[in-house]
Amino acid sequence: MNITKDIYATSLSLLTDLYQLTMAYGYWKQGMAEQEAVFHLYFRKNPFDGGYTMAAGLEYAVQYLQDLKFREEDLEYLASLKGSQGQPLFEQAFLEYLQDMRFSCDVDAIPEGTVVFPNEPLVRVCGPLLQAQLIETPLLTILNFQTLIATKAARIVDAAKGDRVIEFGMRRSQGIDGALAATRASFIGGVGATSNVLAGQLFGIPVSGTHAHSWVQAFDEEEDAFMAYGKAFPQDSVFLVDTYDTLEGVRKAITAAKKLEPQGFRLNGIRLDSGDLSYLSKEARKLLDDAGLTYTNIVASNDLDERFITTLKQEGAKINVWGIGTKMVTAYDQPALGGVYKLAALRNNDGKWEYKVKLSEQLAKTSNPGILQVRRFLNEQGYIADMIFNEAEALPEQRVIVDPLDNTRRKKISTDTKYSDLLVPIFRKGELEYELPTLTAIQSKAKEELNQLHESTRRHLNPYSYPAGLEESLHQYKSDMIFKLKQAK
Amino acid sequence: MNITKDIYATSLSLLTDLYQLTMAYGYWKQGMAEQEAVFHLYFRKNPFDGGYTMAAGLEYAVQYLQDLKFREEDLEYLASLKGSQGQPLFEQAFLEYLQDMRFSCDVDAIPEGTVVFPNEPLVRVCGPLLQAQLIETPLLTILNFQTLIATKAARIVDAAKGDRVIEFGMRRSQGIDGALAATRASFIGGVGATSNVLAGQLFGIPVSGTHAHSWVQAFDEEEDAFMAYGKAFPQDSVFLVDTYDTLEGVRKAITAAKKLEPQGFRLNGIRLDSGDLSYLSKEARKLLDDAGLTYTNIVASNDLDERFITTLKQEGAKINVWGIGTKMVTAYDQPALGGVYKLAALRNNDGKWEYKVKLSEQLAKTSNPGILQVRRFLNEQGYIADMIFNEAEALPEQRVIVDPLDNTRRKKISTDTKYSDLLVPIFRKGELEYELPTLTAIQSKAKEELNQLHESTRRHLNPYSYPAGLEESLHQYKSDMIFKLKQAK
Repeated sequence: MNITKDIYATSLSLLTDLYQLTMAYGYWKQGMAEQEAVFHLYFRKNPFDGGYTMAAGLEYAVQYLQDLKFREEDLEYLASLKGSQGQPLFEQAFLEYLQDMRFSCDVDAIPEGTVVFPNEPLVRVCGPLLQAQLIETPLLTILNFQTLIATKAARIVDAAKGDRVIEFGMRRSQGIDGALAATRASFIGGVGATSNVLAGQLFGIPVSGTHAHSWVQAFDEEEDAFMAYGKAFPQDSVFLVDTYDTLEGVRKAITAAKKLEPQGFRLNGIRLDSGDLSYLSKEARKLLDDAGLTYTNIVASNDLDERFITTLKQEGAKINVWGIGTKMVTAYDQPALGGVYKLAALRNNDGKWEYKVKLSEQLAKTSNPGILQVRRFLNEQGYIADMIFNEAEALPEQRVIVDPLDNTRRKKISTDTKYSDLLVPIFRKGELEYELPTLTAIQSKAKEELNQLHESTRRHLNPYSYPAGLEESLHQYKSDMIFKLKQAK
Repeated sequence: MNITKDIYATSLSLLTDLYQLTMAYGYWKQGMAEQEAVFHLYFRKNPFDGGYTMAAGLEYAVQYLQDLKFREEDLEYLASLKGSQGQPLFEQAFLEYLQDMRFSCDVDAIPEGTVVFPNEPLVRVCGPLLQAQLIETPLLTILNFQTLIATKAARIVDAAKGDRVIEFGMRRSQGIDGALAATRASFIGGVGATSNVLAGQLFGIPVSGTHAHSWVQAFDEEEDAFMAYGKAFPQDSVFLVDTYDTLEGVRKAITAAKKLEPQGFRLNGIRLDSGDLSYLSKEARKLLDDAGLTYTNIVASNDLDERFITTLKQEGAKINVWGIGTKMVTAYDQPALGGVYKLAALRNNDGKWEYKVKLSEQLAKTSNPGILQVRRFLNEQGYIADMIFNEAEALPEQRVIVDPLDNTRRKKISTDTKYSDLLVPIFRKGELEYELPTLTAIQSKAKEELNQLHESTRRHLNPYSYPAGLEESLHQYKSDMIFKLKQAK
């Protein structure tokens, strides 16, 4: 499928901030529109105070870029915009320039399902300044959100320690695509199924779900409700038992299951959706086991996240399927990833690259100059360290990685260490060169990637800070630039 | 425009939880599919520990319902779903039933831009059980999110005390519709403009924006960057001054403005995006005023919300335009509204209504039975109290409102008090009867509504709890039902 074409009837070319278009106009007027520029998309801090981040969303971004083209109605809308004095905001000739514009950038990116760390470019765009600038907002919208949710899902799946995790957050998600994209990203993070039928249809994600409280309320007796549902789904019934009184509900579920057994019925599960999930699951397990229903799953839901799952596991709760909604699909404890998109190089009239930084009073917010690549070093035990370096400059003999926030924290890598470079070509001169992997392949990759991280980096509380920093000569170059800029001002 | 048709290429009929479809199948098998049912959509607690909530999203919901129809490919997908034993999940005859199904419910709702309170039905659906159940998830997805964001925006606009507020959160929003729907809802809450160009095109919301740090970085000198931008937008330039050093940036903005003045340039504003916004705005104001640029606006951004704005105002910050992103479009401090959709009545075979409740160990989570309407009492000073009552039963002479969480908190309303009933007819037998207001009209209504609330209810910290409760006989009926159900178990 093509996400943007299959989901959206409207062109997404205007899915950007107005300032991208006013800057585009400014560059065009200055004759700078085609000047070659390099931008990096990256984040500055792992979300949820975690030790890693899971890249996601690239497929959406690729398909947005493939379809990037101003249509007649887009240009008509732009022509209708007025400045404060009632004058047209844009000249007609500029709109004609946009009309003829075809996406022609080189794009390199880290594939979905890869673990990534602060400051690493998830996407590097190299091409005409106007185009490379224009796509900032949609790239951020798409990648910030899906990366955030895939990371949250990975943490939740990790906490569930092999139990099945099902996503059913649609009703609390942030809009229609907040649901669709969250379901997709949750699946990348390791979730096994979703309640979202449209995501099932569009993305091929397995769908799952049984009944709500209203089903039970619609019958005079709870047991009748279970009997009726069991008859409709003899192999796939999960009875929701807390409409009136949870343990009473479990007893009625067992009675119904026993009555239906002679007709080949097998109670797949019961679901607890309120109350003390630890206590209730233990009591429910006893009741089910005593009735011989040892195979019946206990599904729990009710505002669960990785912390609550961990606590329940520590208490020995007898839950083996986890239904996760709000806390995952909105990344409730941190509902936005602060990804940014910064200019890092501009080719001057002599054909030479000029590297760029943006200063800030906070060191963490100063951007990194160059045309950056990420080299990941690894051994048999897994990943060792990541080195962000400028691909356009020769690398020194010694591989030394410097923590951008603490230049006394350095890691030397011996020259024979195995590595792979994370950014791979996606577009060349606007042509797609990358073969998009299937969603299942991305999910598998994500799982393998997490296995390459030391458990201390995967820890949810105070994780070990995986060494991901700047190659020493890049770090030195950046420091020199900052000093020079600060003196000049 | 038609939101679902104009934005979405795909049918949204499968935008629902699988359990809505499995229940639908169950009801169909039981011969209960057409039994008349009443559901209410409501929330239990004002978001952000606030004193009120702003209803939004109805137009999206209406257009989703108008287009509700299973297409060939939807049914093919449903036919492809398998149970755990590999058997088809649904019988073919059921899919044929869905194919022929046309939305035929009565829907009543509270119009967008109305202030609402916990337990009040924002939407009441009355119609065939199967249909009324099926639409639960999309209604919640749409209304939960937009109501959440409109409320957040109203709080932020309130804190800005008449200053212009601009939304530019797209890059941090939760997906593509997370951006579009958030922009729409923010506008309802009182925001004046957005950076989101697609929202401008689709919804007619004014768009706004100037330039990013990268614009400044793209030039060798900051002043050159301002000069170039000023030439492109002589009346509409807002210079971003913190790329290198904020106050130095202000001085350069002034120099550029002075050089451009003879050509008719007028510096509309400067923008502060980092650092101590209170201190920097005061210093910037002095510099601008000393240069005679008393008309130049000071725009501030950087993770602002109602609390931060209030603090800055208290400190006398010289900011008069507020750019709001992440914290508003994700409702960062509470990224989900816990709206629910509960069965409240079912017509039995004798044609009589049976009222329904869902119990819970938490009183706040027990649902309300009946066919509910909300009556708002008012006088010249504004709104006095809201009474939730069962429209299908005769009202007693005395109007007494009981707080559902504290039945000792009661309010008696004298019989001659003016009132209006909030739920209005939207669909009758599936036909749209409601004329959708324009977005601008909704925004105006929202503003008027907030003016009807006492300032103590609008207060952000520990607001007065506006009296919105159950009509006494409804409260009594519900209590009796709960006792009976608890005894029966």
